[in-house]
Amino acid sequence: MLTSTPFPKSFASDNHSGVHPAVLAAILEANTGDAPAYGGDPWTETMEDAFRAEFGAQATTYAMFNGTGANVVGLSLLLRPYDAVLCPATAHINTNECGAAERLLSTKLIPLPTENGKITVDDIRGQLSVIGNVQHSQPRVVSISQVTECGTCYTADEIAELAEFIHAHGLFLHMDGARLANAAAELGGSMRSLTTDVGVDLLSFGGTKNGAMGAEALVVLRPELDISTLFLRKQGMQLASKMRFVSAQLTALLTDGLWRENASHANAMAHRLADGIAGLPGVSLHYPVQSNAVFPVLPEKAISELQERYLFHIWDATENVVRWVTAFDTTAEHVDTFISDIRLAVNGAVNA
Amino acid sequence: MLTSTPFPKSFASDNHSGVHPAVLAAILEANTGDAPAYGGDPWTETMEDAFRAEFGAQATTYAMFNGTGANVVGLSLLLRPYDAVLCPATAHINTNECGAAERLLSTKLIPLPTENGKITVDDIRGQLSVIGNVQHSQPRVVSISQVTECGTCYTADEIAELAEFIHAHGLFLHMDGARLANAAAELGGSMRSLTTDVGVDLLSFGGTKNGAMGAEALVVLRPELDISTLFLRKQGMQLASKMRFVSAQLTALLTDGLWRENASHANAMAHRLADGIAGLPGVSLHYPVQSNAVFPVLPEKAISELQERYLFHIWDATENVVRWVTAFDTTAEHVDTFISDIRLAVNGAVNA
Amino acid sequence: MLTSTPFPKSFASDNHSGVHPAVLAAILEANTGDAPAYGGDPWTETMEDAFRAEFGAQATTYAMFNGTGANVVGLSLLLRPYDAVLCPATAHINTNECGAAERLLSTKLIPLPTENGKITVDDIRGQLSVIGNVQHSQPRVVSISQVTECGTCYTADEIAELAEFIHAHGLFLHMDGARLANAAAELGGSMRSLTTDVGVDLLSFGGTKNGAMGAEALVVLRPELDISTLFLRKQGMQLASKMRFVSAQLTALLTDGLWRENASHANAMAHRLADGIAGLPGVSLHYPVQSNAVFPVLPEKAISELQERYLFHIWDATENVVRWVTAFDTTAEHVDTFISDIRLAVNGAVNA
Amino acid sequence: MLTSTPFPKSFASDNHSGVHPAVLAAILEANTGDAPAYGGDPWTETMEDAFRAEFGAQATTYAMFNGTGANVVGLSLLLRPYDAVLCPATAHINTNECGAAERLLSTKLIPLPTENGKITVDDIRGQLSVIGNVQHSQPRVVSISQVTECGTCYTADEIAELAEFIHAHGLFLHMDGARLANAAAELGGSMRSLTTDVGVDLLSFGGTKNGAMGAEALVVLRPELDISTLFLRKQGMQLASKMRFVSAQLTALLTDGLWRENASHANAMAHRLADGIAGLPGVSLHYPVQSNAVFPVLPEKAISELQERYLFHIWDATENVVRWVTAFDTTAEHVDTFISDIRLAVNGAVNA
Repeated sequence: MLTSTPFPKSFASDNHSGVHPAVLAAILEANTGDAPAYGGDPWTETMEDAFRAEFGAQATTYAMFNGTGANVVGLSLLLRPYDAVLCPATAHINTNECGAAERLLSTKLIPLPTENGKITVDDIRGQLSVIGNVQHSQPRVVSISQVTECGTCYTADEIAELAEFIHAHGLFLHMDGARLANAAAELGGSMRSLTTDVGVDLLSFGGTKNGAMGAEALVVLRPELDISTLFLRKQGMQLASKMRFVSAQLTALLTDGLWRENASHANAMAHRLADGIAGLPGVSLHYPVQSNAVFPVLPEKAISELQERYLFHIWDATENVVRWVTAFDTTAEHVDTFISDIRLAVNGAVNA
Repeated sequence: MLTSTPFPKSFASDNHSGVHPAVLAAILEANTGDAPAYGGDPWTETMEDAFRAEFGAQATTYAMFNGTGANVVGLSLLLRPYDAVLCPATAHINTNECGAAERLLSTKLIPLPTENGKITVDDIRGQLSVIGNVQHSQPRVVSISQVTECGTCYTADEIAELAEFIHAHGLFLHMDGARLANAAAELGGSMRSLTTDVGVDLLSFGGTKNGAMGAEALVVLRPELDISTLFLRKQGMQLASKMRFVSAQLTALLTDGLWRENASHANAMAHRLADGIAGLPGVSLHYPVQSNAVFPVLPEKAISELQERYLFHIWDATENVVRWVTAFDTTAEHVDTFISDIRLAVNGAVNA
Repeated sequence: MLTSTPFPKSFASDNHSGVHPAVLAAILEANTGDAPAYGGDPWTETMEDAFRAEFGAQATTYAMFNGTGANVVGLSLLLRPYDAVLCPATAHINTNECGAAERLLSTKLIPLPTENGKITVDDIRGQLSVIGNVQHSQPRVVSISQVTECGTCYTADEIAELAEFIHAHGLFLHMDGARLANAAAELGGSMRSLTTDVGVDLLSFGGTKNGAMGAEALVVLRPELDISTLFLRKQGMQLASKMRFVSAQLTALLTDGLWRENASHANAMAHRLADGIAGLPGVSLHYPVQSNAVFPVLPEKAISELQERYLFHIWDATENVVRWVTAFDTTAEHVDTFISDIRLAVNGAVNA
Repeated sequence: MLTSTPFPKSFASDNHSGVHPAVLAAILEANTGDAPAYGGDPWTETMEDAFRAEFGAQATTYAMFNGTGANVVGLSLLLRPYDAVLCPATAHINTNECGAAERLLSTKLIPLPTENGKITVDDIRGQLSVIGNVQHSQPRVVSISQVTECGTCYTADEIAELAEFIHAHGLFLHMDGARLANAAAELGGSMRSLTTDVGVDLLSFGGTKNGAMGAEALVVLRPELDISTLFLRKQGMQLASKMRFVSAQLTALLTDGLWRENASHANAMAHRLADGIAGLPGVSLHYPVQSNAVFPVLPEKAISELQERYLFHIWDATENVVRWVTAFDTTAEHVDTFISDIRLAVNGAVNA
């Protein structure tokens, strides 16, 4: 029998959390009189400055409603009608956006199998022989996720190597950074060290999973790509009329390192959770823990028992892999209680 | 010389306003612990109930980020690849969404000229001779705006007449209700009396201009059309992860008639403004005032002088028509100060 | 009672005709052994040379299956995702391609009302105020038809004036030349004098109505636009595998002035027809005859009587306008018999 | 040194061939006076009857310009905006149509790896867990090629098994039958036995590679799917104006079993070629020969030497696989000369 906390913390997703108090405070502060709509307000200007401070003076930033919006609008800056996007088969744009890229961009995604969500230079090289062949969609963009959908991270060197190869072949490097903050917190450097400094051309920056109410951003890191972004965002249905309330959220996360504080904490909770289940019988890790997600293999009976009490997703039903995600507001107590229940369930399953 | 209020109220748009206190309170209240993402939360359930109470038990409601999103996702429920949407030439979907309908739906809009933003049965009839002709896009949806982009309203009878004709010819009636609240406030009935009860099939409900931070909704009024809406919203990049914060805003507006209070007040301010400029030399109304917008013709010199101090848009530069919009937070004092400045500017222009 | 020719010549369209003998001979000649597919054959090379001889050394030509294909692929060379095409409301791309431009290019067409199918500088100027406004689709291309769908022609000077204005505003000039041959035959100059020499950027060249079996071409008249045409044609489903048989048709039309001979004859037959009905009671011309089409107003009863025997289309049912089209193989006898039947029908209708 | 035939037969593709005499004769016969355009002609009616005779009384047939057109228009009958097409990774729609399906249908293709171009029930089953999940494109159609792009054939039983599984899960079965004739010739039955009788819903029928000048067809085998095909073909830029000349070609192929005669001969030539190289040192077959294509592995030096004299494609450069295709007009002498040259090249390479 599991412990009986009435409302256990969700381990299903970092978007099950609420809003960080500092973000809420920023929203309240922005509710001051009139302001021009569609981004012509001072809060948006401040937000743009904050992104320049973080990602470099050449960065231009566009507030977006959600990650799909940031990804799709961002990719639309780069794609000609006959182009293709290379991405890991696990990429969110490939598997979790209900075909938005194909539908709204009319573009082809070419999914590449990976071990752990991370694409390599060899994966890309194998796709380039079709360049110039009129029968084939032309590879134009490589999209990587940082952290990946498997919870793993690319190191700065790995990104630099990808970028160098990609640019040498005339392609562009897009990063879905829904959890970029978690990667930077894990790896120890700045977000700039994983993007601007290593050749990322376009970034989808994720705020919502980091503690915002609903705020993402497209960050254009190469100025010559920033030609038509205002039109493409408007047409892409991502232009907020009262934009100040989105911008203020993003600024709050970039102020005083709140993004890092939130991400570091979430990551620490994931490592605590992974540590707490290490060595349990029948339990192993499907991917290494490198951010705020844990992908354990569990006995099937333990999974079903835990799901009666806890919210989390099955990652691979045939291999009994589940996904647990921690957030800025996951506490050590949440984790320890969960560990305790996991131990009960696993031991029960093994001894059954 | 104009009076010297340091930060005059904007008359450019009702989305220059901030957030109504009751809406903000609802957002704060929703920030309570964890909740399932993507609409599986109790606040969204409450919001759906509130819409059923307002629009009828058959209404299903989908929170959206913005009006373009609600319009485009809504229309996608109805359109086959070879269909066309009939709309007034002034329709927001035709002139103010940067071609989102064409880009994202790949559909043809057929713009129909009108006197005042209102389409008639005769306008529609003239487009139906191509039905069945394989060379032509097939008229499938008629989209009307309530209130119109000209600030005018359709009466319930006018909508009923349109709907009857439209349905008799196998078409659907879509309403862009970005300011439906203002129409209901002006005409005196419920929002239902202008939609469900008179044959509207699909409604884009506007909350943002009515006092929300950023909250719109697609309301499907005919259940047989509500087949794939969840997929189309997700793919349409309008699925909020922390949806409770959007839903809570909508619920706040539908609670205790806040929508009507806000809209009635805004309308009253527009009428006060129109009354205040009546009879000024060289001044007339381009459209009748039937909501929260005033479209006066002004002497050109008065326009430029007023624009030095006030935010508002030119509607028709060749005819010197401007657009003034009032909001839930426009005060009588704002209006009276503006009137006073208008009088000065107009008289100065006339006497120059 | 009408005369009783068993199978009267069709006056419905110039694509009711068969294939000119010289075109058929060219097809037979091309059926010689193997040839590389997709345009890598000598017949295609010869065709490209023939177009260069006709339109200038800088012209590059791409065989297409039909006019919609040439128009849609051609426009795709020019359009960014948020662009719009300005065209007369009567344009074939707007009214007779079942929304292909919107569906396949996801682009907005902005139809402009005209008197006679011909667009003017003023019509275009009125659409340019939205340039730079992020809420609006951006005018990018002006598409004109030569001859127009009303059978009228632009003079070389008129095209030059349009092109100058269009280019001065950063737009492009596209010509749907499904019947360019007829215009050149009517106006007396070369096809080049109506295209290359007066600033047309892209041309859809029509061969089918001029006597081919099925052969159209996209002619790119400004080399800097010819970047991705091979990809766009392939993707646009217009790449013929055994292309030599399409190319050979086009070459036949461009050899020894066959295009002009065919077009001149068809035009002459239209004038003969128009002359033959001049002065009949209740009969007038809705548009001037400037090519191979006649648009008369007839008594309604005469229309229905003639339609029992002859194939032709109603152009405007409310104003009793019909359309008669002649072709390369319409004979003087066909016309004279038709005139005779028209006289009977009209006189019968008037005296009824 | 290779033998010195001045213009060796191409082994690159069956669309390097010209037109079969009977097809040309049919085209000439159709050039008889006027006929209504766009399919309203007697030759098209005859063609439709011929397809009914071949595929069953319920089959409706639409002439198309090329295979991409038939595939794209066909799939558009089935797809909702959020649907996906499952297909082998080698499918022509996935690899050789320059992204037309994604661009023109805005749909997602999900490529499945195969051994030999043939998809299995297990391959499909693995993709169905996402059904109903709003984050994922929904599998809707399975597209198979018969013969496959690897030259292999599905047996009637294999297709029946696929169809049964596909239909049981609410999906549709599409067949790209660019070389269906070759499959039927190889397997010995009728084309109907591989389509209508075993559950194929939609067929792209290929005529061009079988001896036509340029004629393909979409054959709708399930009447309830044939709702909007006329609109979708027109919009899909595949509506021939002088359609009789396309229809006549198709009829010629279906008359007196010409399709089978042409396909059987081409297949026999491929088998003769495969037999002729059997046992050569360093030579093996990458795929079994089941139609008119041979995919041998050759010594690299032999490939380059042969390519100096013969047209053919490299299939896999890293594994030294090439593709040789025979056609209705490939003669035994062509093959034997080729074999002789292959022997010289292979022996030269091995002994070098």
